[in-house]
Amino acid sequence: MGGDIGPKVNIPAALQVAREGVNIILVGDEAVLRAELARHEGVGSLPVTIHHASQVVDMDEKPGDAMRRKKDSSILVACQLVKDGLADGVVSAGNSGASVACGMFVLGRIKGVERPALASIMPTEKSPVVLIDVGANVDSKPFHLAQFGIMADVLARDVLGIARPRVGLLSIGEEEGKGNTVVKEAFDLLKQTSLNFVGNVEGRDVFTGDLDVAVCDGFVGNICLKLSEGLGRSFGRVLKRELKRHMLSRMGAALSMGSLKNFARMLDYAEYGGAPLLGLKSILIVCHGASNIKAVTNAIRMAATYVDKKAHEHLAEELTAHKELGQFCRHKAQEETSAPA
Amino acid sequence: MGGDIGPKVNIPAALQVAREGVNIILVGDEAVLRAELARHEGVGSLPVTIHHASQVVDMDEKPGDAMRRKKDSSILVACQLVKDGLADGVVSAGNSGASVACGMFVLGRIKGVERPALASIMPTEKSPVVLIDVGANVDSKPFHLAQFGIMADVLARDVLGIARPRVGLLSIGEEEGKGNTVVKEAFDLLKQTSLNFVGNVEGRDVFTGDLDVAVCDGFVGNICLKLSEGLGRSFGRVLKRELKRHMLSRMGAALSMGSLKNFARMLDYAEYGGAPLLGLKSILIVCHGASNIKAVTNAIRMAATYVDKKAHEHLAEELTAHKELGQFCRHKAQEETSAPA
Repeated sequence: MGGDIGPKVNIPAALQVAREGVNIILVGDEAVLRAELARHEGVGSLPVTIHHASQVVDMDEKPGDAMRRKKDSSILVACQLVKDGLADGVVSAGNSGASVACGMFVLGRIKGVERPALASIMPTEKSPVVLIDVGANVDSKPFHLAQFGIMADVLARDVLGIARPRVGLLSIGEEEGKGNTVVKEAFDLLKQTSLNFVGNVEGRDVFTGDLDVAVCDGFVGNICLKLSEGLGRSFGRVLKRELKRHMLSRMGAALSMGSLKNFARMLDYAEYGGAPLLGLKSILIVCHGASNIKAVTNAIRMAATYVDKKAHEHLAEELTAHKELGQFCRHKAQEETSAPA
Repeated sequence: MGGDIGPKVNIPAALQVAREGVNIILVGDEAVLRAELARHEGVGSLPVTIHHASQVVDMDEKPGDAMRRKKDSSILVACQLVKDGLADGVVSAGNSGASVACGMFVLGRIKGVERPALASIMPTEKSPVVLIDVGANVDSKPFHLAQFGIMADVLARDVLGIARPRVGLLSIGEEEGKGNTVVKEAFDLLKQTSLNFVGNVEGRDVFTGDLDVAVCDGFVGNICLKLSEGLGRSFGRVLKRELKRHMLSRMGAALSMGSLKNFARMLDYAEYGGAPLLGLKSILIVCHGASNIKAVTNAIRMAATYVDKKAHEHLAEELTAHKELGQFCRHKAQEETSAPA
């Protein structure tokens, strides 16, 4: 049901992935979902079922309110299906705060994880980079950032197959000691880990492909994510306009169409679909509210791949066994004990 | 003397602007500057003088240390020349923290301004957008952000000629109440001003051209600035690679070269040179440490334009007369009074 457009985007996406053999449970208002399904052909032969949920969390509703007031919301019911073992993962393009809240409270956090974080796997000139957190948390504490680094390191090894991910801390200067208060303290914590911590990285380093994980607070990460998207689209539009401006260029554009398509593909974050919420016991992929069919399709494919690879079980196992994750929880406990009454 | 490369970049830039009729004072080690000048022809006929300063602040030196220990540093001496009325403005590609510190303490702040902020005037698809702060401050308080908005509003009106600048607060959702603690409080303050405050804006809104001023903390702004730069360069490289991949595309590239140059120009932040430090009594333009000749040239041109337009005097007059700027200082005073002892 979720997203700026809702079933008109989500259902075509789900049907596409169902055609590829993935079992889909559509969770939401049965009448609405049936009406949308009726607009598509050959649905009867696909592995698609409907699970009714009478409520929808609005895009601008406060997550806490939604959790309390809407016990039969599609996102809450979908998470409950996973908890009950009736589904293997959840994909949502709805209110992302509500998705994160339902994920935390229904699916549950992996032991030791203080704050689950959204990891966006973004394209670069070379291999992809994991940007974490892209919006699950604001006002993160230093030890949260350290935990984000540990979680993304496991993801990069397990899902992206990078043996020793290069983990950087997003800041405003490469030297140690550059950054705001939280980042300076996070630097000290990350330095103590066994991660391949490459120190501070700057905004310009994110997309060079020389980095595997960029750690930041969700406020910063979300702005970076959306800035990149926006810039990608702007560049695309300006390029098209410039190429069309002159007759000569119009010929040029026609000739180089194949290359430009490849280029546009790199800019198009819809290719990458959604962001997994790391730190949960199960799979939850959060999509952009403004996702199109392609983005939701790729997010569902991502969820299916994670299920196939048992990526989440590996993540949970690795994180549960990770000594350093606990260390940063204790660090938190120490902070609380030493805080003034 | 400043910058990753130093005189080899700064002097050719200065000579270029001197050829356009701008009086240049090169501040730094006389022997070094003379040696670099000797590599260029026709210098004797240009309005260029040297003012000796025996020390240089290193790029990774802590600003406070540099201010205390290096009383004869080129940046400090350059600011002193302006204070003494011997120069009209300063351009520096050196240690930006030291530039900001010297600017604040030597040139002085406009009455009512708590924290000067770096305003980057960035390209968009349509008219430019002022991003403030891009790195002068980290851990800004809500009333600092409100002051940044007021300062950038004056800049946008005075320098960019926008009658009623649309001022947005960079956050992670458009709705009021989205953001981190500081941004939520800044929203409340900005709402009370007479600015044309359009509310929260997201990362993707920065480059659409539908916004004139984007307000943020210097940590966030610096990351955004450098992310945009990096992404612009990445896109440029990928585009070039894609266009060259096939013979057909190579023809296409040749044909559309003129358009692509225009496109690359938009991506190239060197076009925009440096960022003025707003809130000072005089003109200080801070360049990227990695600036090339083009960037420094444009930064000096910007300083000269500001001098010609008396932009800084207008800024100072407008800000001094601005009732709301004082209001946000009082707000700060109130905060301090009500803070626990």
